[in-house]
Amino acid sequence: MTTRTADTGLAELVERISRPVDEGARAAARASYDAKAKPRGSLGTLEDLGTRIAAIRRTASPGRLPAAIVLAAGDHGYARGGVSAYPPEVTGQMLATFAAGGAAINVLAREAGARLLVVDAGVLEPVAHPSIRPLRIGPGTADATVGPAMSREQALEAISAGAALAEELAAEGVGVLALGDMGIGNTTAAAALCTALLPAAPDAVCGRGTGVDDDGLARKVDAVRRALAANRPDAADPVGVLAALGGFELAVLTGVCLGGAAAGCVVLLDGFPTGAAALVAARIAPAAAERMVASHRSPEPGHALVLAGLGLRPLLDLGLRLGEGSGAALALPLVGAALALLEDMATFGEAGVTDAGR
Amino acid sequence: MTTRTADTGLAELVERISRPVDEGARAAARASYDAKAKPRGSLGTLEDLGTRIAAIRRTASPGRLPAAIVLAAGDHGYARGGVSAYPPEVTGQMLATFAAGGAAINVLAREAGARLLVVDAGVLEPVAHPSIRPLRIGPGTADATVGPAMSREQALEAISAGAALAEELAAEGVGVLALGDMGIGNTTAAAALCTALLPAAPDAVCGRGTGVDDDGLARKVDAVRRALAANRPDAADPVGVLAALGGFELAVLTGVCLGGAAAGCVVLLDGFPTGAAALVAARIAPAAAERMVASHRSPEPGHALVLAGLGLRPLLDLGLRLGEGSGAALALPLVGAALALLEDMATFGEAGVTDAGR
Repeated sequence: MTTRTADTGLAELVERISRPVDEGARAAARASYDAKAKPRGSLGTLEDLGTRIAAIRRTASPGRLPAAIVLAAGDHGYARGGVSAYPPEVTGQMLATFAAGGAAINVLAREAGARLLVVDAGVLEPVAHPSIRPLRIGPGTADATVGPAMSREQALEAISAGAALAEELAAEGVGVLALGDMGIGNTTAAAALCTALLPAAPDAVCGRGTGVDDDGLARKVDAVRRALAANRPDAADPVGVLAALGGFELAVLTGVCLGGAAAGCVVLLDGFPTGAAALVAARIAPAAAERMVASHRSPEPGHALVLAGLGLRPLLDLGLRLGEGSGAALALPLVGAALALLEDMATFGEAGVTDAGR
Repeated sequence: MTTRTADTGLAELVERISRPVDEGARAAARASYDAKAKPRGSLGTLEDLGTRIAAIRRTASPGRLPAAIVLAAGDHGYARGGVSAYPPEVTGQMLATFAAGGAAINVLAREAGARLLVVDAGVLEPVAHPSIRPLRIGPGTADATVGPAMSREQALEAISAGAALAEELAAEGVGVLALGDMGIGNTTAAAALCTALLPAAPDAVCGRGTGVDDDGLARKVDAVRRALAANRPDAADPVGVLAALGGFELAVLTGVCLGGAAAGCVVLLDGFPTGAAALVAARIAPAAAERMVASHRSPEPGHALVLAGLGLRPLLDLGLRLGEGSGAALALPLVGAALALLEDMATFGEAGVTDAGR
């Protein structure tokens, strides 16, 4: 794939990500699971998860990995077109709720023992709070149905800011970097990105998001069609696609994927918007997908297509359609369990159990 | 359905379980989720789980519920017929491993913050250890392919012991009672119970368990056919079916289901053997199924049929085929999350978020 990696800073990230994950560590972790006092492979997907993490972390014994959820919020020009059941001001209101600790993701992050880092990537009105990281690219994106959502420079600035944040967290010891999103209108932006990058038909990737009715769904499909017609994005230029159709929070999350992958983190995806951001990252640096884990599959029709495009199978399928990183937070205990089993279980030999299942 | 509830002690349990779960509490919990600062229903299955638990616990605010995993082990006459990849002595070896803390379930119970109670329901050779609860019905069951696996009195004794254990745990504050099983040969016993109770064809409910080859699978199907022919069980008499075809650990787990349901616990199932034990419980006391939650679906073909027979949809689908309560332990964080959201999330009003999604 040809990507315009000459864009500032990206080339070095892409180069670092292109280093393959460690197949030796994967094989050693598989051998370690196989030696445990249980039938081979009997922990199914959990063993696949643990061996993938070993390959990403480049060690057969990854230990326990501290987790952080980066929850990026942004507003969307699309929202002016009635594509959501909620008005745009809800993005900022939810940002304030995250800061106050009362949202679903606050509860779920606490339950999972994960750090929650809330980022203002560009909501309409800034919310001043010490717990919100201001990485504002602008006061909401422009209306992509008539022209680019943002400039190429803004897209690169957002990617760079997200990547720097991921590297900062990795330097602080974070091993699992989970993504979360908040932005009224952002499933429309995600759908538009997918139509251009997978590619896919607009009506195949537009869903009800957090709950639009039939008319709203028709407006979403129409908005995506108009955005494609107005911008004529080139799939071979993923940064250009992101600038034309994306959102500020999605662009920051693309950067978090790239920075996390470059820093050797396990990048844990959430729902459809984070999936679209990850797809952009994988189109910029294909090897980034090897560092990603899909926490869940949402009912949003585009989500299954994105995960297939990334070559990922979801851990959970619980009908979640909230976003915020909620599905990622719910999958964190599975990540923790896979690693704990690798670390703490006795082998057949240690336990004195007959290993007849070789 | 006619059941022989005149059997000692069972009638009173069945009577207690027949009290319907609390639909008022379910509706109030639903209203509580709907008032939270998130689109209605956007947490999908998690909200259904929380409202079910509210109905079972008879309160819209169940709070956090302490969990215990009852892991019952027993040996099976079936195992003498080469139906497992492992020899019978592995049951006792694993019981010792549970006591020593090195098995998968020890790790997973610790991760989930759940108490683990290991029960010897009748392994061939007893394992003396202070952490093992001896509820031995006998030194392994008889060979069900030539006659009853146990006497009716033994089946009732096992049910009674399991029910008493569940009531003891409930009295100590346990709100979620998870089931786990260990017993070489017990997926054959589970398959036999399902053929009689669902009913189903032997080859539709026999699978590879922890890993038998094609010949072993053929021997399983044959063993189930011979057990049905030798015992000619009557589905209208579930205790009789259990005695004819079951295992000691499965009979104890049937009792745990009944005692747990009677005591108002959420009964969390694990894989196929615990599902079969739960099916027996539901045939004895149909309303017991309303108190059950299916933690996961295993690749064992009978498991999906059992869950359908119980009217339950699994939370996880991770290819788990270990048993021990491992799937139940992995689902406990989802139970905890559903309850934490109900308890801790802010409402639209508290958060000052526009509730346009009514």
